[in-house]
Amino acid sequence: MNPKRIVIVGGVAGGASCATRCRRLDETAQIVVLERGPYVSFANCGLPYYVGGVIEEESKLLLASEALFRDRFNIEVRTRHEAVAIDREKREVEVRELATGRSYRESYDALVLAPGASPVRPPLPGIDLPGIFVLRSVPDSREIRAWIEAKQAKSAVIVGGGFIGLEMAENLVGRGLSVKVVEMLQQVMPPLDPEIAQPVQEHMESRGVTMALGDGVAGFETNEAGQLIVKTQSGAAHAGDLVILAIGVRPETALAKAAGLQLGERGGIRVDDQMRTSDRSIWAVGDAVETQDVVTGQATLIPLAGPANRQGRIAADVICGRDSHFRGVQGTAVCGVFGLAVASTGASEKALRRAGVTDYEKIYVHPAHHVGYYPGAKPIHLKLIFRKSDGRILGAQAVGEADVARRIDVIATALQFGGTVYDLEEAELCYAPQFGGAKDPVNYAGMVASNALRGDNPLADWSEIGSTEALLLDVRDPDEFAAGHVPGAVNLPLNQIRARMGELPKDRALWTYCGVGQRAYYATRILLQSGRDAKNLPGGMRTYRQIALSSRGA
Amino acid sequence: MNPKRIVIVGGVAGGASCATRCRRLDETAQIVVLERGPYVSFANCGLPYYVGGVIEEESKLLLASEALFRDRFNIEVRTRHEAVAIDREKREVEVRELATGRSYRESYDALVLAPGASPVRPPLPGIDLPGIFVLRSVPDSREIRAWIEAKQAKSAVIVGGGFIGLEMAENLVGRGLSVKVVEMLQQVMPPLDPEIAQPVQEHMESRGVTMALGDGVAGFETNEAGQLIVKTQSGAAHAGDLVILAIGVRPETALAKAAGLQLGERGGIRVDDQMRTSDRSIWAVGDAVETQDVVTGQATLIPLAGPANRQGRIAADVICGRDSHFRGVQGTAVCGVFGLAVASTGASEKALRRAGVTDYEKIYVHPAHHVGYYPGAKPIHLKLIFRKSDGRILGAQAVGEADVARRIDVIATALQFGGTVYDLEEAELCYAPQFGGAKDPVNYAGMVASNALRGDNPLADWSEIGSTEALLLDVRDPDEFAAGHVPGAVNLPLNQIRARMGELPKDRALWTYCGVGQRAYYATRILLQSGRDAKNLPGGMRTYRQIALSSRGA
Repeated sequence: MNPKRIVIVGGVAGGASCATRCRRLDETAQIVVLERGPYVSFANCGLPYYVGGVIEEESKLLLASEALFRDRFNIEVRTRHEAVAIDREKREVEVRELATGRSYRESYDALVLAPGASPVRPPLPGIDLPGIFVLRSVPDSREIRAWIEAKQAKSAVIVGGGFIGLEMAENLVGRGLSVKVVEMLQQVMPPLDPEIAQPVQEHMESRGVTMALGDGVAGFETNEAGQLIVKTQSGAAHAGDLVILAIGVRPETALAKAAGLQLGERGGIRVDDQMRTSDRSIWAVGDAVETQDVVTGQATLIPLAGPANRQGRIAADVICGRDSHFRGVQGTAVCGVFGLAVASTGASEKALRRAGVTDYEKIYVHPAHHVGYYPGAKPIHLKLIFRKSDGRILGAQAVGEADVARRIDVIATALQFGGTVYDLEEAELCYAPQFGGAKDPVNYAGMVASNALRGDNPLADWSEIGSTEALLLDVRDPDEFAAGHVPGAVNLPLNQIRARMGELPKDRALWTYCGVGQRAYYATRILLQSGRDAKNLPGGMRTYRQIALSSRGA
Repeated sequence: MNPKRIVIVGGVAGGASCATRCRRLDETAQIVVLERGPYVSFANCGLPYYVGGVIEEESKLLLASEALFRDRFNIEVRTRHEAVAIDREKREVEVRELATGRSYRESYDALVLAPGASPVRPPLPGIDLPGIFVLRSVPDSREIRAWIEAKQAKSAVIVGGGFIGLEMAENLVGRGLSVKVVEMLQQVMPPLDPEIAQPVQEHMESRGVTMALGDGVAGFETNEAGQLIVKTQSGAAHAGDLVILAIGVRPETALAKAAGLQLGERGGIRVDDQMRTSDRSIWAVGDAVETQDVVTGQATLIPLAGPANRQGRIAADVICGRDSHFRGVQGTAVCGVFGLAVASTGASEKALRRAGVTDYEKIYVHPAHHVGYYPGAKPIHLKLIFRKSDGRILGAQAVGEADVARRIDVIATALQFGGTVYDLEEAELCYAPQFGGAKDPVNYAGMVASNALRGDNPLADWSEIGSTEALLLDVRDPDEFAAGHVPGAVNLPLNQIRARMGELPKDRALWTYCGVGQRAYYATRILLQSGRDAKNLPGGMRTYRQIALSSRGA
C-alpha cells in the first residue's frame, strides 16, 4: 500500500493541529501544508498585543517554523503557496507559488481545508485609503505599528466594538493614542447581552476611550491635516490618524465554493461531525466551517482558536481511520480590556430569542470574587440563563476584574455535561479566603436560579417595571433608598417587614428589590409565607442600573 | 398546629446556614441557635490572615451579629451558651449559660448539631506551657497577636504542615518572624501526593521558612531565654518565641456520643444523606459529621466550609419537609502560600492506594497558565488521576502561581458529573492570550490522559526507573541533557530519531522522557509506529525532579 498523501490548505490553528496529529497517527503519510501567508502556526490572538507593544518581539508570535515542521514532524510546509483550485475528480489541488507566480498541481488522498476567515472590508467609499487597517496577520500588525511610528499617530478610530476592536482600543491607548470606537449596535461586545456589555463600555470610557454606539459607518475621507475621517450614517464624522476595521470576519469559502462543496446557511463550509465536507475526500476545519451550536442546535460560525484546534485533531483522526466526532461548540470566550474581563459560554438571551426559544429564565448575581473580609475583593456581575422547565443551563455571561474566566469555565464545563442550575448549587469548588467563598459565585448563581425554579423566589422581569400594576418594594435601608432608587418604588427596609406587614396593600402584587438581590429574596420569602403575591427583581439596583444604562443607548 | 421549634447547636458555617435557611422555609418556626463561643457566624478561614495583619480589623471577621440574626431572620442566637446534654426521650437540650453557670432546658422538635471540630492537642509533656497556641476561634487569634506583641516575638515553631500550618507560616513570616515548620510526614500538605507537595515546600523554603519533615513532636519545654523548645522524636529541639499547633482537628462528638447517637468509623457523627443522625429528630452538619467520599465511596471527615454550608441547607430543607439529599464530598480545596496556590479535588493517589483501588492511571503536565508568548506566563504543575478501565476522572492536584484554582474547579465540576478524561480533552474553556491557551491546561491534561488510554502514548512509571530493563531515552537536545538528566539515560534528540532509529536496540523496551512530556510523546509515536516497544515517562524531567526531591525526604 502506498503511503497516504494528505494535503492541508492553511497552516495556522486548525490546519497546523491537523497536520501534526496526522503525523502522530501515521508515520508514513506524506503530509503537505500549503499556507498562503508568510508564516505557519502564528499567534493570531496575540496580534493586538504586539501592536500595543505588550508583546515586544515579533518573533514571539511565530509559534513554529517551516524547519520545525520538517525536522520534528517530517511535514512539508510551503508558505506563500496558495491553493487556487481543487480538481475533485482527479483529487488534485492547483497551487500557485506566490513568489514566482508558478502554478503546479498537488495530488491528495485526503484534503483538509483550513483557510480561516478574512476580515470584513465593506465596499464603502474610501475603504481603500491608506491608514485604514484590518488585523488578521503578522504583516497587518507590522503595518499598523509602522504607520503609528511613521505618522507619530496620536489618535485612532476603531470601527467595531467586538473582541478585536476592544482589544485594539486597549492596546492603542496603551501606546498613548486617543481612541474612539464606532459601533453600529447600541452596545459593545455584540455576542453578549447589552446589560453585561454595559460595564465593559463604562470601564473603557473611564479609561478615556470614546464610544460612538448605534451608528453605522457610511464612508471614509481624509482631511487637510492628513487625518482619516470616518463618516457615519447619522452624519457624524470621527477623525483619527489611523482607522482599524474590526467589524468581524467572513469565512474563506472561495476555494470550497468554486470546487462545488456544499456551503451552509450561515455561509461557512458545511461539514458533518467528523469534519467532512460534501466530498468524502475533503475535510474542513476552523473559522471557515459551520458547526452546530450545542445549546440552540443551530448552525453557527465560531471563529475561535480552541474549537479550530479540536476540529483539526478530529479531522486527522478520521483521515487516519479513527471514529472521532466533534461535539459542537458552546462559544465559550473571554476578552480582557484594561484589567476588566468579560466572558461567556452557551447562548445569550438575544441568541435564544433569535432562535425562538421561550422556555428560559435568567438571574443576575453580583458576588465578590473572593470573601469580602479578605482585602481586594472585586465584584463579578454574572448572568445565568437556564431552562424554566427543567433547570438545564443554557448560557452564562460575566464581567469583572478578577477570576471571571474561572467562573465561566466552571459553568461551561457543567453545560458540556448537560448540567442544571441544581448542579451549580451543589458544586464543590476551591475555597480559601483569597480564592473564593464558602459559597462560590457559581454556587450563588445556582442557588438563586434553583430558588426561582422551586418557587421559593419567583422572579419578576425588569423590562416590565414600567408597565406593571405591582408595587415596587425597595427593601434596602432608608439612606440607600435616598441615594437613588427605581422610580415609583416605595421603601420598606427588610428588617421592618414583619412588623409593618399591615402597611402593605393586600390586593396588589409586590415586586421586591434591594442592592444585589439577597435582601429582596429574604423579603420575598417573608411576604410569600404571609400569603402575599411577591416576586423578586433579580440582581437588585446593580442589575437595574446596567439595564437602564444599556437601554438608554449611546 | 404549634410552630415548630428548631434548636441548633453551633452558630458558625453549617449551623448558621441551617438556621437562616430554616427561617426562609418556615416563617413561623421558633429557631434558637446555641453557640458556646462568643461569636456567631465568624470567618474561621480568615483567622490566619488576621493574625498576620493582612486582615486588619477583627470586626471584619464577624460576618453576622446576634442582632442581625434577630432583626433580619427572627432567630434567637445565644452566644456563650453551651449545650451540655441531650434528653432524646423528652426532646430537650440541657444548656449552660457560660457567663453565669446557670443551666436550663430547651425543648425541640428538630435538633441540629453543628458543633464543629476542635484542634488536636496531643497529651505530650509541656503541651500546656504558655505560648503554645491553636487557631480555631477569634479569641485564639487575638491571643496569638497579643503574645507576639507582648513578647516581641522574633521566631515561631509551627507543628503541622497542613493548610493551617502553612497559612500560619506565611502570615508569621509576613509579620517578620522567622518560622520553622515541624511535620511528622516526609511532606507538607498531607492530603496531597508528595510530588505535588514538593513545589510547595520548595517555594516556602525559598521564602525563608525552615522545614523539619519526617519528625514527630515528643514534647515541649522552655529555655532560659524564655523561648519554647519543641522536642522531636528524633531528638531534635526547635526553639521559638511561640508555638502554633496545627496538627489537624477532631470532630466535636462528645455531646452526640453522650446522647447515644451513632458515630462512624472515622469518629465523626454518622448521618444519612439527609444529614439525619441515628435519632430521627436530630440532624448533624459540618466538621463534626462523617460524609461519603464520592470517589472512593468511603466515609470521610472533611472539615471544609463549603460542604458545611451545603449540609446546613440540606438539613434545613429536610426539617422543613423537603426531600433534599447531600451528594457527598469530593474534598475540593485550595491553599495559598507566598503567592503559590495548591489545589486538589477528588482522590489523591495515596488515598486510592489506601482504599485498595488499583484501577487507576495518572499523568502529569506542566503547561503555562496562559500562552507563553504573552508576558507573565507561569507554569501549572498538574497531576490527573483517572480510571484505567474507562477514563473516569478520580482526582486532580495542581500547584502554581496563577489560575490553579480555576483549573481544579473545572476538573472538580467534570468529576461531579462523573466525567472522563475524554471530556476534559473536549472541554471548551475561556481563551484569550491573558487567560489561557487555545488548548487550556485542562485540555492538555485530558489529551495526555486520553492518549495514554487509547494506547497512543503508553505510560511508564517513574517509580520503576531504578529497576526496569528498559532503556531510558532522553529525547531533549544535547545541551539540555548535559545540564542534568536521569541517571542511566541515553540522549537521542527527538528530531534525530527517524534518522538514527538503527542505533536503538531492538530487543529492549524504550522509555522516553523530555522536559515536560510533549517531545517524549512525539518520540513515543515515532517509535511505536516503527514497531518498537516504547513508553513515555509522564511529565518529563520536571516530574522526575518533583518525585526525586519529595522521596529524598527532609
